[in-house]
Amino acid sequence: MSAAADRLPAVVLVSGGLDSATVLTMARDRGFDCYALTVDYGQRHRLELAAAQQVALAVGVAGQRTVTLDLGQFGGSALTDPQLPVPDRPTDGIPTTYVPARNTVLLAIALSWAEVLGAMDLFIGANAVDYSGYPDCRPEYIEAFERLANVATRAGVEHGGIRIHAPLIRMTKAQIIQRGMQLGVDYALTLSCYQPGSYGAPCGVCDACRLRAKGFAEAGLRDPIVTNAAG
Amino acid sequence: MSAAADRLPAVVLVSGGLDSATVLTMARDRGFDCYALTVDYGQRHRLELAAAQQVALAVGVAGQRTVTLDLGQFGGSALTDPQLPVPDRPTDGIPTTYVPARNTVLLAIALSWAEVLGAMDLFIGANAVDYSGYPDCRPEYIEAFERLANVATRAGVEHGGIRIHAPLIRMTKAQIIQRGMQLGVDYALTLSCYQPGSYGAPCGVCDACRLRAKGFAEAGLRDPIVTNAAG
Repeated sequence: MSAAADRLPAVVLVSGGLDSATVLTMARDRGFDCYALTVDYGQRHRLELAAAQQVALAVGVAGQRTVTLDLGQFGGSALTDPQLPVPDRPTDGIPTTYVPARNTVLLAIALSWAEVLGAMDLFIGANAVDYSGYPDCRPEYIEAFERLANVATRAGVEHGGIRIHAPLIRMTKAQIIQRGMQLGVDYALTLSCYQPGSYGAPCGVCDACRLRAKGFAEAGLRDPIVTNAAG
Repeated sequence: MSAAADRLPAVVLVSGGLDSATVLTMARDRGFDCYALTVDYGQRHRLELAAAQQVALAVGVAGQRTVTLDLGQFGGSALTDPQLPVPDRPTDGIPTTYVPARNTVLLAIALSWAEVLGAMDLFIGANAVDYSGYPDCRPEYIEAFERLANVATRAGVEHGGIRIHAPLIRMTKAQIIQRGMQLGVDYALTLSCYQPGSYGAPCGVCDACRLRAKGFAEAGLRDPIVTNAAG
């Protein structure tokens, strides 16, 4: 048996963005054999999918899957519906970029793969500080999914102890970036923008771009990717 | 506004099998405008998908979607992996036909559509009496998903009261069939078998066929579909 046999497997949701690249690196740093899962749910920012694969490759994973699920056919989100514009300034309440039940769908698919792999640990880059106000990014959501996972699956029922790790959930964007830099995350590979240009250039005005720029500014660091708009 | 405006929308998971055909009819009978959701998760019994559409058409629905998600690429289940044989007799514990986290994936996708539709009611044909011992068919599982749904979504957070209905959960297969017959369900359109023949003829020996045959026998009714093996 190789040395890898001593390491526990974990499924890590990797979107191609800054947060999940940091989470993947944190999970690897904790000694997990990481299985990177990317879900193509019809997001408009297709370049995210390529970024996700590059991130997984750079961090070094035991396995990688991209699963296609067309949530776009339901409509209802600016991230999957070309008819709905992406807001270019902060909005009150939950913004139109919210994808209905997205994290529930992502974690459900991750749970399915985890059960096949015998993995009891799932990682997600949800964040409830510098975030867009999505309900499925809050700590009570993560706790509710963990409870569900332990009654939903053979592994949960027979062994218990499935854990949903959301290590960024109470961190600011600046803290996330600082931690990632310490761990050697290459943020040049990541893509946060909801509506990047044809060569992957971020728009600089969407929620995701604004949160990213604010994070790098507060961390006192320079973002390695270039934006179209002034920061 | 049409009369339909007074009816509440509900998302109903429809697999093409006996249970979900009954649930769809029960939901319609309770006055819901039903949106039938079928998920093509790579199940070997592809004819189920056609049966699901026929059932939805026959019952009469306000909308129908078939969403593709390739859980088969994870392997681990006899229902999605051609390398694993479907058991032809009862087994101890959770059988190999268990699809990891299947109902969590199905309900997550249903929740996404429900949120777009403004539906607070989801229906699933889970059953914990005459069933195959899957963990995600038990009442505590349904309750855990309902709690999750109410913290996961904009609708749950802003309005509360998302309900996961599993009206069959404590019924025997015979009771389900009797109730369905009262409501006029056409069981000839349904397909339960895990490995039907080329014309959709059930094998008669898999778990699903055995439970169906037992149900009709105990109900004192004749199954309108013909099986290959003696019942």
